[in-house]
Amino acid sequence: MTAPSSSQSQLSTATLLLSCPDQKGVLASVSDFVFKHNANILHTDAHTDPDLNLYLMRMEWDLAGFTIPAAEIASRFEPTAQRFSMQWRLAFSSNRPRVAIFVSRNDHCLTDLLYRHEIGELPCDIPLIISNHDDCRRLADFYHVPYQAIAVEKDNKLHAEDFALTLLREHRIGLIVLARYMQILSTGFINQYGNRIINIHHSFLPAFIGAKPYHRSYERGVKLVGATAHYVTEVLDEGPIIEQDVIRISHRDSLQSLIEKGRDLEKVVLSRAVRWHVENRIVLYGNKVAVFG
Amino acid sequence: MTAPSSSQSQLSTATLLLSCPDQKGVLASVSDFVFKHNANILHTDAHTDPDLNLYLMRMEWDLAGFTIPAAEIASRFEPTAQRFSMQWRLAFSSNRPRVAIFVSRNDHCLTDLLYRHEIGELPCDIPLIISNHDDCRRLADFYHVPYQAIAVEKDNKLHAEDFALTLLREHRIGLIVLARYMQILSTGFINQYGNRIINIHHSFLPAFIGAKPYHRSYERGVKLVGATAHYVTEVLDEGPIIEQDVIRISHRDSLQSLIEKGRDLEKVVLSRAVRWHVENRIVLYGNKVAVFG
Amino acid sequence: MTAPSSSQSQLSTATLLLSCPDQKGVLASVSDFVFKHNANILHTDAHTDPDLNLYLMRMEWDLAGFTIPAAEIASRFEPTAQRFSMQWRLAFSSNRPRVAIFVSRNDHCLTDLLYRHEIGELPCDIPLIISNHDDCRRLADFYHVPYQAIAVEKDNKLHAEDFALTLLREHRIGLIVLARYMQILSTGFINQYGNRIINIHHSFLPAFIGAKPYHRSYERGVKLVGATAHYVTEVLDEGPIIEQDVIRISHRDSLQSLIEKGRDLEKVVLSRAVRWHVENRIVLYGNKVAVFG
Amino acid sequence: MTAPSSSQSQLSTATLLLSCPDQKGVLASVSDFVFKHNANILHTDAHTDPDLNLYLMRMEWDLAGFTIPAAEIASRFEPTAQRFSMQWRLAFSSNRPRVAIFVSRNDHCLTDLLYRHEIGELPCDIPLIISNHDDCRRLADFYHVPYQAIAVEKDNKLHAEDFALTLLREHRIGLIVLARYMQILSTGFINQYGNRIINIHHSFLPAFIGAKPYHRSYERGVKLVGATAHYVTEVLDEGPIIEQDVIRISHRDSLQSLIEKGRDLEKVVLSRAVRWHVENRIVLYGNKVAVFG
Repeated sequence: MTAPSSSQSQLSTATLLLSCPDQKGVLASVSDFVFKHNANILHTDAHTDPDLNLYLMRMEWDLAGFTIPAAEIASRFEPTAQRFSMQWRLAFSSNRPRVAIFVSRNDHCLTDLLYRHEIGELPCDIPLIISNHDDCRRLADFYHVPYQAIAVEKDNKLHAEDFALTLLREHRIGLIVLARYMQILSTGFINQYGNRIINIHHSFLPAFIGAKPYHRSYERGVKLVGATAHYVTEVLDEGPIIEQDVIRISHRDSLQSLIEKGRDLEKVVLSRAVRWHVENRIVLYGNKVAVFG
Repeated sequence: MTAPSSSQSQLSTATLLLSCPDQKGVLASVSDFVFKHNANILHTDAHTDPDLNLYLMRMEWDLAGFTIPAAEIASRFEPTAQRFSMQWRLAFSSNRPRVAIFVSRNDHCLTDLLYRHEIGELPCDIPLIISNHDDCRRLADFYHVPYQAIAVEKDNKLHAEDFALTLLREHRIGLIVLARYMQILSTGFINQYGNRIINIHHSFLPAFIGAKPYHRSYERGVKLVGATAHYVTEVLDEGPIIEQDVIRISHRDSLQSLIEKGRDLEKVVLSRAVRWHVENRIVLYGNKVAVFG
Repeated sequence: MTAPSSSQSQLSTATLLLSCPDQKGVLASVSDFVFKHNANILHTDAHTDPDLNLYLMRMEWDLAGFTIPAAEIASRFEPTAQRFSMQWRLAFSSNRPRVAIFVSRNDHCLTDLLYRHEIGELPCDIPLIISNHDDCRRLADFYHVPYQAIAVEKDNKLHAEDFALTLLREHRIGLIVLARYMQILSTGFINQYGNRIINIHHSFLPAFIGAKPYHRSYERGVKLVGATAHYVTEVLDEGPIIEQDVIRISHRDSLQSLIEKGRDLEKVVLSRAVRWHVENRIVLYGNKVAVFG
Repeated sequence: MTAPSSSQSQLSTATLLLSCPDQKGVLASVSDFVFKHNANILHTDAHTDPDLNLYLMRMEWDLAGFTIPAAEIASRFEPTAQRFSMQWRLAFSSNRPRVAIFVSRNDHCLTDLLYRHEIGELPCDIPLIISNHDDCRRLADFYHVPYQAIAVEKDNKLHAEDFALTLLREHRIGLIVLARYMQILSTGFINQYGNRIINIHHSFLPAFIGAKPYHRSYERGVKLVGATAHYVTEVLDEGPIIEQDVIRISHRDSLQSLIEKGRDLEKVVLSRAVRWHVENRIVLYGNKVAVFG
């Protein structure tokens, strides 16, 4: 697996994520900027996409001894960013991302995420679970996470979304994780959280886009089943893919056992994607994703 | 993955597991026995080991319509078994195996097993968790499983084991699962549950037998880490291997991230081994294990 | 990997492959038939598909000591087959399948198949290579396999196929392997070799059906690329899947490196499928394939 | 798979590989050095090992437009290297590494390497094959590679090595690949090619160090077999690991089929290691290897 290692450190760090037109001097300028303010660089990873002529980069440094106060780094970096026409983002390890999990009745991904969070694998806060059912409340209580059931009926869908949006704002949510949430979100909703909604689809996309992928996998007689974590965009199951994995099946597998094997996949694939997002490792470019180590 | 599919059915079935010297007529005799008593065979899987000259077989059939009462099947089959010098065992789906889980402080495997049990992936009862610490009690309570903490100190080891054995007998335990239980069991204890104790070792055995396998994997610079589920025998980490798997790491992985990736492995590897055992899919031969579909 | 082990033996064996409506007594009747004629059964593998209510089975036995002459086994088995409405086939290890390989310019699969054949991994004869180019002739010569270049132009396509069919008949070909043959065969051609043409498609079907799957994989930003070996049917890339596998890629992979990683997949996936076919391990049912051990 | 993508380009590039004590300013100094001489950086990858307090780095840039002539880059970089106490190496894509392959009778890895070389996957020259047998001469001839058989008997071992060393010097060999060469090299020989001999061991090291790993894997009943490519050091099978991979087996696999599955592993594992070496992607540190993208 290519999963980058986690720093897991208790250091206070800054992480710079950027993409810009590929050109000479980007690396030299960025590394000069951090070096001359006495940064201890922890991680540097960069990538050039020759087709799109893009330069992508992630740099993480220890803030101890850094001579620019955290609150001023962005404004001090701005001239460099403008010079190279960068799209960029600065994140601090002390600012833990705030994540809301949406779930319906299948609770395997939710159980997995809450456990990982508790043992420290996910450096984020989870102040909110939203569900269209009441089934997972006891689990949420066990992990002391507030749980809000919002029934979604055909004729109250937008209403339900509005209520959800209110809660998301109240809790200052920065990332929404659809952990087997079986409702399709409206375009309006999605646009408010552009590239900040991660979904787990239970197939190897783009195979079996849409409903009932396990049933269709079973009918087609594939020899592997897959799972895909991706950012949600307006077009169903077409957003940027963050992570995928597969598991082998055979003619001996019933539809039921195929679903069970798939569950194990969904859990690890979704949790990797969420982790990389909250660890500020992901840079989007075109409809693709670079995951930096 | 070669994991056999689960029947998951609500049928009442009988499963025959056998091994005997390879010879003509075994399959014909066994299938004649079940057929002439009107069995509806659900699964047949067989294997011949040419080195050991052994014939191994698993057959599962629906008891509905079977003309021998369940209680008499064993005695009626006995002559056939004797004729071919079989080692054999008959199991009924209505007799769910009773499993005790031993755990220390790392609770990822325990969490995983209890969740799988709750959603129906493990056809067994779990009436007892034993631990040398109190840490996992809240988790056990959540799943309504009785939890017994038995402190193990240097000078009370056998005493602690005796207490555990008493509890195991009281709960009529048929399988012990060591879900990251960090105490070495005495030979006396092991002998009372021969081939009925499953351990998860956090390396790809026989690499890194013994203590601290992740640390040694990290120091050796391996490119994959593994996990192994095996039956416990008197010789540490040398028992029959039930299941193994690996995950890729790189120079970017710290010891901590290596341990985290290993946890995901341990969970799936141990749960597969436990499942195959309680589904009566495993036949031992020599120091090896055949897992039947 | 689920690849069944190869017998690789020098034994003279018979293999029975069958499918029939699931019903009581099939296994008992078949095993009684072979046992009472003194067969030494080497392998038995069976599967019941509950959705289609089908029973599938493979049995291989040593002909040494078998009391029915090979030439009469089929007729003697016929009554049993009729009683259970079987679709069945009897194959003898002494009758090596005759395989023709079709190839265009990419020779990695051809190179791989010819090498495996030479070292004894593929129990078949390869008396013919057909190509629409002359590029691979030197390779064919190295392995002493007759090579026939048949140019395929837009207006001579059926003519070219007719010539190929003549050659196939002359060489009594039983299996056609499309080892990266970049021409689409006509329905008429396909129908003459129903379920006896194996193709390698360079994607994880049903993702990226049709042309240029690597290019489309690259554009979509998938995190794994795949390869699929399947029987060719009238509908492009929709035939029964025999084997699939995947390999991990990342944002670092260029289209070129993605193609290179894919080549390694194509080789192993196609060779496994061919091997299982010529070892008589495959039973078709519906649009699916069971591969027996 | 973590395999880095290949540049495959026809560009003329320089690659800098370095390791030094982790300290502030390394990246800034190196990127300043290349930037101010007008480099177009193609790839940058770096890693910090906190346990050893080491900074490792690979940088590759296009020489077109670079204002220092290739022949002077090293001397101009020397002051920077000294300032940071670097161990470093500069490689040019125009200087293709010269590789000798050693082989005994098993020719699967040799066949694979020669084919990959021919189709352009391995950017190196292969001017010499050395074998203790004559078996692979025809294959070498097919690929137009000079082949030297050097019989190795108990009492002429050092003599045979001396002859090999003479040939290696004559052909200015920079890397020796042991492609299933079944002779143990003397310490004297190894020391002359320190960290420039790559071996393929047919197990998942450190499991099954030494002779007959497949036989011992079979006897132990493991559920996966592995292969390991490593640099050869004085201590058998203990050198730095470059790449490893595994494949699943089951009780159905005979020793023979296990060996056959292992062959497929050996080929890909060895070829990846050789490729990364000749693409100048490997930095050694301690007894470990970082493979840079």
